[in-house]
Amino acid sequence: MTDVNQRNLKNALAEYLPLPADTEPHLKAALQEVLGNPGSLVRPEIVAKMFSAYALPDENATQLGIALEYFHTASLLFDDLPCMDDAQERRGEPCIHIQFGEAQAILAALALINKAYALAWRAIAGCAATGHDPARQQTAIAYLEQYLGVGGLLNGQSMDLNYASLPHDHQTTERIALGKTVSLIRLTLVLPGILGGASAAELQLLERVALCWGLSYQIVDDLKDVLHSPAESGKTGSRDASLGRPNIALVVGIPNAVHRLTRLIRIGDNMLQRIVDRRPGVSFLQDLRAQLNGEATDLIASAFDNSIQGAA
Amino acid sequence: MTDVNQRNLKNALAEYLPLPADTEPHLKAALQEVLGNPGSLVRPEIVAKMFSAYALPDENATQLGIALEYFHTASLLFDDLPCMDDAQERRGEPCIHIQFGEAQAILAALALINKAYALAWRAIAGCAATGHDPARQQTAIAYLEQYLGVGGLLNGQSMDLNYASLPHDHQTTERIALGKTVSLIRLTLVLPGILGGASAAELQLLERVALCWGLSYQIVDDLKDVLHSPAESGKTGSRDASLGRPNIALVVGIPNAVHRLTRLIRIGDNMLQRIVDRRPGVSFLQDLRAQLNGEATDLIASAFDNSIQGAA
Repeated sequence: MTDVNQRNLKNALAEYLPLPADTEPHLKAALQEVLGNPGSLVRPEIVAKMFSAYALPDENATQLGIALEYFHTASLLFDDLPCMDDAQERRGEPCIHIQFGEAQAILAALALINKAYALAWRAIAGCAATGHDPARQQTAIAYLEQYLGVGGLLNGQSMDLNYASLPHDHQTTERIALGKTVSLIRLTLVLPGILGGASAAELQLLERVALCWGLSYQIVDDLKDVLHSPAESGKTGSRDASLGRPNIALVVGIPNAVHRLTRLIRIGDNMLQRIVDRRPGVSFLQDLRAQLNGEATDLIASAFDNSIQGAA
Repeated sequence: MTDVNQRNLKNALAEYLPLPADTEPHLKAALQEVLGNPGSLVRPEIVAKMFSAYALPDENATQLGIALEYFHTASLLFDDLPCMDDAQERRGEPCIHIQFGEAQAILAALALINKAYALAWRAIAGCAATGHDPARQQTAIAYLEQYLGVGGLLNGQSMDLNYASLPHDHQTTERIALGKTVSLIRLTLVLPGILGGASAAELQLLERVALCWGLSYQIVDDLKDVLHSPAESGKTGSRDASLGRPNIALVVGIPNAVHRLTRLIRIGDNMLQRIVDRRPGVSFLQDLRAQLNGEATDLIASAFDNSIQGAA
């Protein structure tokens, strides 16, 4: 992911949400803090390359990519609130609600969401204006609505919050990951395909890659929580277990989680190869997947060590 | 406002946010509670009549009207949270965060916002598709973005929250009302004009009516808080004064607030007559304004009684 200009994306992240001179100072400060301390910007990078693979306008790629980054960032601001995860730190800094208060964190998140919808709208309308089928615009809007709303992200978050009242099984933990983790990956991979006129078969392959990657990512995260020794992480045991949070490795056991992970990676690779065969421009996704696999391989090795130690 | 079918709007309010069978039960229950106990639905009623005055499609009127009602409802859910107004009751029922918890209230509000943007989007695209100038679509999107975002509602809310750190003067209280109260009235009156191809002069008149009505409404609310005797309201004295909240009657005094209110009503009437002269279809706004005036007249009378008692 080196050929997409990170500096341009970082600048766009701040520039796409201009704060008028008469913006209330606390709201302004909270938003400047959020936008000045960005994450990896992997979503806008992927969107930029997907748009390029589908010959869609660069300007609209940046708009949609930044929109997805704003949605993601807003979801973190809400997640960190005392009534949700009650987090203290994010990206090496005290959380926004710690620095500016809960109400200000909520208003900052809503400002990101408002701008994100406007940007997504412009990106989608822009792609439609370049002479593509206007029906794609309707499909893209419905897709965005579905995976951000009660059929996607919000449902996953609500299941996560109410996990104590749900069955602690494989199906439930995967449904939570489908809502919370897979939704934004879907939007990142599939929306450019919809706007670029990908065939139904190609869209289905993109959907499946998003699914395999999202669930793999969640299992990697869950395995890390369970496997990291106190010496490595400075934490004692599984934080998810002590907080009663959904974790697939806790629910199905480490060997079954590793088995599921390797299976998802294999299916994902297979689907990805089939997309690359159809549309070589998306081969950059294979490099990205190699990065994910590096981490997964380390974890799988760690899981084996763990099981050997357990048997000894 | 009797010829727009209230029952249809009430049904649309619930039907436009279908909850899939696998929606997490707490999220579903919170949203059903919100949608089952609606407010006056004055926004969708006005939008429906404005769309009719500008010969825009009924279906798009309902979409935009319900979208504005969802935005309004979401803003109430956030306003009521402990970190904001810490309210206990809304529309005669315990607040959503009291019934379902803060996190669930936030997710329900976000579900309303997500659906509201999608509906507004469809309404705007629908109006554009009926053969109108596509530039109007861009203008409408920018207008929605501005008055819901840091240039409108969110800025007003942030000024309201941080009122203790701001000058307690006429200008500040009006700027807060401009953000918090006028923004949604603007969207209700001006967006249909933009989509219907109103002239620049007509849009400016609609803007001014929105401004006069929004500020008048806020002064009426502020006067009520200050004037209502304990016997009438069951409260003792001004709640805004005891909570340190912005209130124009507290800042400029009751006589000046009454003077400002009568002036705003007069200017608003004048602007409204000029719009009706150009576009007779919006004359329904004069009936609506007569209702507002009834309440204002009672309050002005009450203010005089108060000043006579004060002098006695």
